[in-house]
Amino acid sequence: MGEAGAPEGKGALIRGDLIFDAEGRNTTGFRNDVSVHLRGAHGQSFDLPTDEGASHGGGGTAPYPLAYFTSALTACVMVQLRAFARRLKIEVGEIAVNTRCHWERTQYGGTPYVSQPVAFTMDIDLGPNMAEADQRRLLAAAEKGCFIEASLKPGIVRHRLKINGDWVEIRSQP
Amino acid sequence: MGEAGAPEGKGALIRGDLIFDAEGRNTTGFRNDVSVHLRGAHGQSFDLPTDEGASHGGGGTAPYPLAYFTSALTACVMVQLRAFARRLKIEVGEIAVNTRCHWERTQYGGTPYVSQPVAFTMDIDLGPNMAEADQRRLLAAAEKGCFIEASLKPGIVRHRLKINGDWVEIRSQP
Repeated sequence: MGEAGAPEGKGALIRGDLIFDAEGRNTTGFRNDVSVHLRGAHGQSFDLPTDEGASHGGGGTAPYPLAYFTSALTACVMVQLRAFARRLKIEVGEIAVNTRCHWERTQYGGTPYVSQPVAFTMDIDLGPNMAEADQRRLLAAAEKGCFIEASLKPGIVRHRLKINGDWVEIRSQP
Repeated sequence: MGEAGAPEGKGALIRGDLIFDAEGRNTTGFRNDVSVHLRGAHGQSFDLPTDEGASHGGGGTAPYPLAYFTSALTACVMVQLRAFARRLKIEVGEIAVNTRCHWERTQYGGTPYVSQPVAFTMDIDLGPNMAEADQRRLLAAAEKGCFIEASLKPGIVRHRLKINGDWVEIRSQP
């Protein structure tokens, strides 16, 4: 028997919290001044303002909120791929991910619109030398470890791996 | 009768797509170079690199992915509040939003961890002059219009409004 409740040979269960908080201020128009903080002993703060482009009625003074979101999703998965390759003892060189986030909005005349995600697709290239089984096992771990994917409605994110030169859709494991 | 399928007096149904795509590259460590693009006639591109802090094994050269996420969620809701106040003919001055994104991760020993969102709370101050009914109606519209909230698992985001000086939890409408 291992630790209480732990799968045989896997060691004790460790639980940790991760908290980011933010203050956003908007005085007029679509410019938002946003400061984000990681608290704690190794805390850090980041000024991450947003704006809409001119074609959306903004001043174009900062990235769109959805540009930050798209970077965050892409990078969060990449962090898990890098971290878990080490934990799973899989060798990985360069990691390249192309992401496409697609939403739709519907509205009647000039009433407020309603938004829906259509699909977020991620094409993940782990290099030509990683065995297919290792690619699949690394992706499965990264999906479960990614804080953002874990927060999204199930089924929205779709992944493809480059296996023997071809893009192969990978069905997520429950 | 109005337009086919349209609620009486609301005008025709309009549908639109919104697409952001990104290329992420990682050669070593946790530094991700990420370029994000809004395509189309009024396209724009943004360099939004990420890194982990030193205490998480990174180089601290750029914001954490989750810092971008926290700004994006905060700002996306603020954009809808500003835009929909106009559409709903509600006067609004300064908008202040404080957000807290809380995740947990669990792992056995040194195996890959599994992430879960705990709660994302947003305290929304629309100023002392807006009637409670208008605050509630504006927030209800903003929740449905926010592209990021619409992508998240139901029930994760909790909102409070500042009504007569007190923070009041607002139950989301289905």
